[in-house]
Amino acid sequence: MAQSPITGALSRESCVVADRSDPLALFKNRFLLPEGVIYLDGNSLGARPAGALERVQEVVSAEWGEGLIRSWNTAGWFDLPGKLGDKISRLVGGRQGETVVTDTTSLNLFKALASAIRIQQVDHPEKRVIVTERDNFPTDVYIAEGITDFLNSVAEESGVRYEVRLIDEDLPLAEALDDSTAVLALSHVNYRTGAMWEMADVTAAAHRHGALVIWDLAHAAGAVEVDLNAADADYAVGCTYKYLNGGPGSPAFIWVNARHQGRFWQPLTGWWSHAKPFEMADSYTPANNIGRFLCGTQPISALAMVEIGLDIMLDADAAAVRAKSLELTDLFIALVEQRCAEHPLELITPREHAKRGSHVSFRHPEGYAVMSALIARGVIGDYREPEVLRFGITPLYLGYADVWDAVEVLREILDTRSWDRDEFKLRNAVT
Amino acid sequence: MAQSPITGALSRESCVVADRSDPLALFKNRFLLPEGVIYLDGNSLGARPAGALERVQEVVSAEWGEGLIRSWNTAGWFDLPGKLGDKISRLVGGRQGETVVTDTTSLNLFKALASAIRIQQVDHPEKRVIVTERDNFPTDVYIAEGITDFLNSVAEESGVRYEVRLIDEDLPLAEALDDSTAVLALSHVNYRTGAMWEMADVTAAAHRHGALVIWDLAHAAGAVEVDLNAADADYAVGCTYKYLNGGPGSPAFIWVNARHQGRFWQPLTGWWSHAKPFEMADSYTPANNIGRFLCGTQPISALAMVEIGLDIMLDADAAAVRAKSLELTDLFIALVEQRCAEHPLELITPREHAKRGSHVSFRHPEGYAVMSALIARGVIGDYREPEVLRFGITPLYLGYADVWDAVEVLREILDTRSWDRDEFKLRNAVT
Repeated sequence: MAQSPITGALSRESCVVADRSDPLALFKNRFLLPEGVIYLDGNSLGARPAGALERVQEVVSAEWGEGLIRSWNTAGWFDLPGKLGDKISRLVGGRQGETVVTDTTSLNLFKALASAIRIQQVDHPEKRVIVTERDNFPTDVYIAEGITDFLNSVAEESGVRYEVRLIDEDLPLAEALDDSTAVLALSHVNYRTGAMWEMADVTAAAHRHGALVIWDLAHAAGAVEVDLNAADADYAVGCTYKYLNGGPGSPAFIWVNARHQGRFWQPLTGWWSHAKPFEMADSYTPANNIGRFLCGTQPISALAMVEIGLDIMLDADAAAVRAKSLELTDLFIALVEQRCAEHPLELITPREHAKRGSHVSFRHPEGYAVMSALIARGVIGDYREPEVLRFGITPLYLGYADVWDAVEVLREILDTRSWDRDEFKLRNAVT
Repeated sequence: MAQSPITGALSRESCVVADRSDPLALFKNRFLLPEGVIYLDGNSLGARPAGALERVQEVVSAEWGEGLIRSWNTAGWFDLPGKLGDKISRLVGGRQGETVVTDTTSLNLFKALASAIRIQQVDHPEKRVIVTERDNFPTDVYIAEGITDFLNSVAEESGVRYEVRLIDEDLPLAEALDDSTAVLALSHVNYRTGAMWEMADVTAAAHRHGALVIWDLAHAAGAVEVDLNAADADYAVGCTYKYLNGGPGSPAFIWVNARHQGRFWQPLTGWWSHAKPFEMADSYTPANNIGRFLCGTQPISALAMVEIGLDIMLDADAAAVRAKSLELTDLFIALVEQRCAEHPLELITPREHAKRGSHVSFRHPEGYAVMSALIARGVIGDYREPEVLRFGITPLYLGYADVWDAVEVLREILDTRSWDRDEFKLRNAVT
């Protein structure tokens, strides 16, 4: 660990010392975590920030209850998607006016794919392949399947066929890209392994084939440094309820490079995407800006809380967050490999800093039962098929000693085989 | 007014007497309305029900803050779309398992249209016309335009063309429907005029042409009696933040007749619509039920509050709600026509009970300024282009004397020309 604040042998004491000199240590006070929990699942659902409860109380009591319909104007509800989008832009290298917070990641991906396909239909009609990854988060593959199925239902009469092509061990990225590629849609950080694509290089490679590039930042925004415009990306989507701590199911975001915003409609042409929605015109004229990627009325209580988490993230130095994330993930890997060495744990996260995000995953043959036992002891990570123990590292509310303690609990569970009890083996839905 | 509780001449006293014998009067106590306001815009944003604040506090503090990721299972978050959908079904004549609460009305309309088009592509490929109304709520027209634009972008290479056909004064419904009609998509109650289609007859007429029928219940659910299965409808979508009092922008619903649920994917194939989302399979297999119409992760704080408003509505007798709605709208019309007779107000809402919903609209040449003056006096209705004063009548929290008092304020404003001041004439966005 180059420049790690931990010097000498790894010990709990050296972790406590590292916490004392952590420039981000005070951010932990801006989150409200339950007693007795080490929370290693902020990459699935971020922790509750201080101020979120007060904000939603204000929305429900004062803005809804007292302001009623007037609050669309007086409380700024109309402006929230763009206002929050501009804050997201500051985190991911977008310009002002390139991002809105709205709908879900799945829906925003549909809009981005549809917009990119529409552009290619005119510029390069021979390009009809969406390239993505077999190991991508499932919704990313499914949405690509959904859009191609829908287009093929009418296109095939004319011999046109859209296709989803999956990168996997047999088909690396370089071979998957060719002149038939309309769109390359990848997750910047893989939800299961934590592996990270090099955004600028991959974008450039796709552009050399004339493909447009969509980045899913669900496990990247707030976790790693992202600069969409420096990478010359075309579209990005992402999630606010993971590292951005917006609350359960809080609305997602979509970033569209300004050069693509004015060209074609995306097909989810709800009234919020109209140039002048309150003229109630009887035909559609899209907004000539990022507003075109809105659709319908947003859930204001959930949307308003997004700002609380975002403001905390914007107060933190992004480089410091990334540096601490790498130190903590390095520490987690080192401690597991030293202290649980005799157990069949296989690291599936890349060791190289440039190739990984902010979570660490190990396979274990009894992964589900092991994770259940960890959660019962208050170490909350999560489980992903197949056999994957996944540990999210969120530098704003986790410290070095937390990592030590979490690995200690893992070691005790493995050493005592306490995971090997029926209560931990019964498979239910685990998120 | 047959069977009206108001007997003899209309007076404030007769309204107060009518309130005393109103079987729904106590429901007003289940809503928290600001002092000094008569709220006639519950058809745009419903009032805050008692219990909504407490519910969202529980979601944020206990479920998110303490339960963290575990609450997806332990707090029942996963089950909310279906659980709330089943409650909606009870209000609109759906069967259990035919409705989910999710996403926005615009998006659910897209799903319904796409599903219906897909069915017709196989059953009746010559049907490529979506019939809707020029005077429909704009998003309904825009979404139809969006979906046809997207299909035509690939279909036209084969000479296939999808089309939106608009019912208007020159093209009545009976002439708009023909054997090319794939889908008829109408709002049950018109957002501007309050005019209501006869659901069963219209559905039967469309079915005779082999068209599938989608009903938008945004201004109907909770306002008029709806029986989707008795009408043999195919799809319905609607809103929870109007008469169902779910909160600003609360998620919408989609009902799909069980006979259509298993046939084709709708194209918004996010992971929540997968048969087994947590298997993280690398290809899409849709849920074989209404879950197929889900897409991505929902905003839990907003979704949870929907249940508070729904439970109040389910406690009320639907026939009593409709009866009181008709009495109050009759009263409103009668009072305006008697007491504001010398002013240029034109009723654009049908007088016939069977042909109207639960709001009343008048045109006035200075409609915007008049509504601004009303709002400044605490009588909150809303304004819709062109020149329309719209008054929503919500029987659960409005009484007879409220209607009297609202019309008195309107009369005073008109008699004194107090609307004729610059502060009321300046046109801003009005929701």
